Amino acid sequence: MLAPVPLPKAYRLLNHGPTVLVSSAHCGVRNVMAAAWNMGLNYEPALVSVVIDKATLTRELIEASGKFALNVPSRRTAAQTLAVGRVSGRDVDTTKYADKFAAYGLNTFTGTDPQLPLVEDCVGWLECTLVPEPRNQERYDLFIGEVAAAWADSRVFANGHWTYDADTPEELQTLHYVAGGTFLTVGAAFEIAPTATR
Amino acid sequence: MLAPVPLPKAYRLLNHGPTVLVSSAHCGVRNVMAAAWNMGLNYEPALVSVVIDKATLTRELIEASGKFALNVPSRRTAAQTLAVGRVSGRDVDTTKYADKFAAYGLNTFTGTDPQLPLVEDCVGWLECTLVPEPRNQERYDLFIGEVAAAWADSRVFANGHWTYDADTPEELQTLHYVAGGTFLTVGAAFEIAPTATR
Repeated sequence: MLAPVPLPKAYRLLNHGPTVLVSSAHCGVRNVMAAAWNMGLNYEPALVSVVIDKATLTRELIEASGKFALNVPSRRTAAQTLAVGRVSGRDVDTTKYADKFAAYGLNTFTGTDPQLPLVEDCVGWLECTLVPEPRNQERYDLFIGEVAAAWADSRVFANGHWTYDADTPEELQTLHYVAGGTFLTVGAAFEIAPTATR
Repeated sequence: MLAPVPLPKAYRLLNHGPTVLVSSAHCGVRNVMAAAWNMGLNYEPALVSVVIDKATLTRELIEASGKFALNVPSRRTAAQTLAVGRVSGRDVDTTKYADKFAAYGLNTFTGTDPQLPLVEDCVGWLECTLVPEPRNQERYDLFIGEVAAAWADSRVFANGHWTYDADTPEELQTLHYVAGGTFLTVGAAFEIAPTATR
């Protein structure tokens, strides 16, 4: 079900504006957080951007390791997405849980990089190498990554396109954060006929 | 129906990932283009970011005027949103049309800035002052704006939240671009109960 996405099409995993889970690791410490502020930035090389607050453990791990992954969650992990957006990895009770993944019941796997955890039950994944831009990181909390590998769940993404329609199981819909614990999900796709545009 | 949005909440107009229309003007020349690559960047001051390709007339107008507006279109103007994302303002037949707004039948109004056109039949509007970042603009086509004023259609945005539900008219749904002339629209909101997060 997990199929590779060609790098010049990787931006399409973010193009419709889903909230993502940012996963990272360094020297045995792993973490995951939610980020609504993300977007594509370039086709080739495939660049993406994401805002990572200074207070986060994720930021420390990304700056130390030089890499991160963006995971596109679906409704299956909506509660966990909300939770990991609210609680810092620094505040996990490590006497009870190994890390934030374990604390919120998120399972992981790896793609091409054995050091970088990817989150199960998502519908898209982008492994990224940090493109260091110190001024952006310091002034705007803005991080840029070059996509090194990408995958999507072939039940909802095929031939470079999301394939959501009225028959797509609700649990596979991506999450679009409003505020206050509320998400919007995507509805069915609709196409503009070429003749409709002058 | 058009209600002001407090500036620290302006990012919420973009938070769920809609494609926007970027409008701009300078010395009597006006233009509009579509941009799926946009995101919130800060709460206070309210900052947003958007990617504007070097080839665009919009970019020339923004760099000359130091301002732009992000308009959040709905399904009412989906065909126009697609069209203005495909055709450059430089290629409008000015023997027939005054500008790209006229060429694609988009009406405009103004908010606080009499020089900055806003697009009718959208559901959100952000008037922005360019925050010049020459390296970002040149290297990544990345533009940052400080939101000077914002409004939303009170039928779908109230108290700082999008209010989409099963009863929202389809024509007021925001547009989330897939590719190849296909958009996703937002479905109904769903809320995660506080007890669902550990």
